[in-house]
Parts: sequence; C-alpha cells; structure tokens
Amino acid sequence: MPNLMQHTYLALIHYPVRKHGSVIASSVTNLDIHDIARVSATYGIGRYYLVHPDESQQWFVRNLMSHWLEGDGRLFKPDRTKALEHVELVPAISDAIHSITAREGQRPVVVATSAQASSKIISIKEIAAEHEKPLLILFGTADGLADDLIESIDYFLERIDAGTGYNHLSVRSAVSIFVDRLYSMRIVRP
Amino acid sequence: MPNLMQHTYLALIHYPVRKHGSVIASSVTNLDIHDIARVSATYGIGRYYLVHPDESQQWFVRNLMSHWLEGDGRLFKPDRTKALEHVELVPAISDAIHSITAREGQRPVVVATSAQASSKIISIKEIAAEHEKPLLILFGTADGLADDLIESIDYFLERIDAGTGYNHLSVRSAVSIFVDRLYSMRIVRP
Repeated sequence: MPNLMQHTYLALIHYPVRKHGSVIASSVTNLDIHDIARVSATYGIGRYYLVHPDESQQWFVRNLMSHWLEGDGRLFKPDRTKALEHVELVPAISDAIHSITAREGQRPVVVATSAQASSKIISIKEIAAEHEKPLLILFGTADGLADDLIESIDYFLERIDAGTGYNHLSVRSAVSIFVDRLYSMRIVRP
Repeated sequence: MPNLMQHTYLALIHYPVRKHGSVIASSVTNLDIHDIARVSATYGIGRYYLVHPDESQQWFVRNLMSHWLEGDGRLFKPDRTKALEHVELVPAISDAIHSITAREGQRPVVVATSAQASSKIISIKEIAAEHEKPLLILFGTADGLADDLIESIDYFLERIDAGTGYNHLSVRSAVSIFVDRLYSMRIVRP
C-alpha cells in the first residue's frame, strides 16, 4: 500500500503566536518535539517542521536532537531516534513552505487550525480529498497563530468539537487527532 | 444531544507497568495529567482516573491538582480548572472499577490498549457498539501494562496501525486518538 501521508507536512509554530492578546514567541516544549515526531513516524508524515526564529531556542532544539540522532539516545531508545528523524528546525514558516515546494515540485496547500471564526473553513474530509497536492498543516503554540499569518493560510480546518462546549485540547492532542482523522479519511477513499 | 461519552472512563496506570522487562511503578508526568484531562473535558468523558499506589507521587498529584482546583491556577486559567475537575487520583485499578460500578450501577467493560498480541482483541467499532454498558479504558505508562493485569481486562483494543511499521505513540497521543475514534463512531451510530 502506498503511503498516502508522505505528502502531508506538519509545522509547529512558536512565532508569531498570541498570548494574552499580544504577539509573542513561545518557548519550545520538549514533549511537543517528541510526541509530534512520534505521530509523524507512526503515520508516515513527510516532515515535521519546528518553527522558531530565536537562536537560543534553536540551540536547545539542536542539542536535544543531537542527543537522540547522534548521541546516547540513539543507543538507549532507537525508536525515538527514528521518530526524531522526521523533525526539521526552521526559523520561519516561509522556510518550511520553500522546503516542501523544493521537495514536491509545487507549493503545498497551507491549512491551519484555529479556534477563531474564519470565512475560509474547510473540513478534514474536504482536505483529505485534495490528495494530489502536498499539504502543510500549521499548529500554533501558546494561544494560537497570530493574525499576521492569515494571508499565507489557504484554509482553516474546522475545529474539534464534541458538543461539550469545551475546546481546549493541548497542541499534542490536536495534532494526534487531526492526523488520525486525515489518515482515516484517506484510507477509505476509493 | 445527549453526551454519549459520559459513561466512558479513562485510567492512566503507573503501576503495575513494564520497563525493560521488569514490573515497576512509573513516575507521574505532569503533561499526562493536563493533556488527558483536557481530552476528557473536550469529549465529555465520565472520569479520568490517575492510578498510582505511591504516597509521594500521590502527594505530587494532589499538590498540582490543588493549585488548579483551589489555588492561583483557578484565576489564571479557568479552562484548565474545568479540565482537571475530571481527574480522580486512586491507588489501584480496582478502586477505579469500584468507583465506576458505584456510579453506574454495573461493572464497566474493561478494555486496555496493548502493543502485545492477545486473543481478546476488539475493534473500536465493536466497543463503540456496546453503548449500553459503561466502559473503562486502561492506558499504561512506561513500556505498557504488566501481564498481571490481563485477567482483569475484558478486551484489548486493536492497536493504532497506519501501515508504516512504526507504532510508538506517546500515551497522550494514544488517548487522544482512541477517544476521538470512539466518539466519531458513536455519533454516526443510527
């Protein structure tokens, strides 16, 4: 079976994101790197971009990656090494888009998750049907993606809503659920 | 719409679990508490049991819970308080089963996730169809549930397999995906 997820890409955005109404750069959370890399390996995602413009945070990520890709982590837990091989650190979203465009020969459709209302909402089913195009899904940290990004986003994915009125999943959970839903819809496609 | 998930319960097991072939008690991971509580609130799960027999680990959990339920956390981030209201700390799995039995008037069907082979495998679709019975889903930390537990488990859920040969999701991701799949199958039920 050809892997239908290899043209799907994830990006975790640390800047520009919102916090208490301001635009900030958020700190990297260790388990965001691991959990989303493990989702990427499990579902065969093309690449998982960690987006951070700050050099000290980039240093932290490189240090951690080096432990798992080249250091003792490789011996201690090889399956973690395999997961982290999906991760690429880039300073800006535009770098992720350029990297995918070079790899795929065409610009990806860029979708984002957002708790905010928008006119460009698309369902997972609709985006799953666009299988001939590469797809980049942006996930915001902190309180979510800053408004400045909206013009580079083609569509917003409809939010996860189980009818409880509560909608505050961690980004780790949200990525897991969106990727699983996308995968489930692609495998049932005739 | 009645909430079909309120009779579903989650338990995160820290003992007895496996690590490098031995049976151990694992340490509590802060983000396991938060992430799974947020999934529980989003999907309207009946209760999320944190299972740990060790008093110092119980103290850590109570301290953290008290910050969010009664302390400054309540003012700082009320939606987190709402999520953590789903959490109940118990020393053993049997306590979770007794608590659910008292609440529901019948013993729950106990299912577990396992990467190991078993003769008692059930699909999410089959378990979703058993909607008249309360359901408790056990998730193991470390390398997974210890074999001693097998006799108290009615079924094992089929593993998340996206055909890549890699199957090492974090427990946070696995809970998110199983709960979303169960929810999706229950809402489409005629």
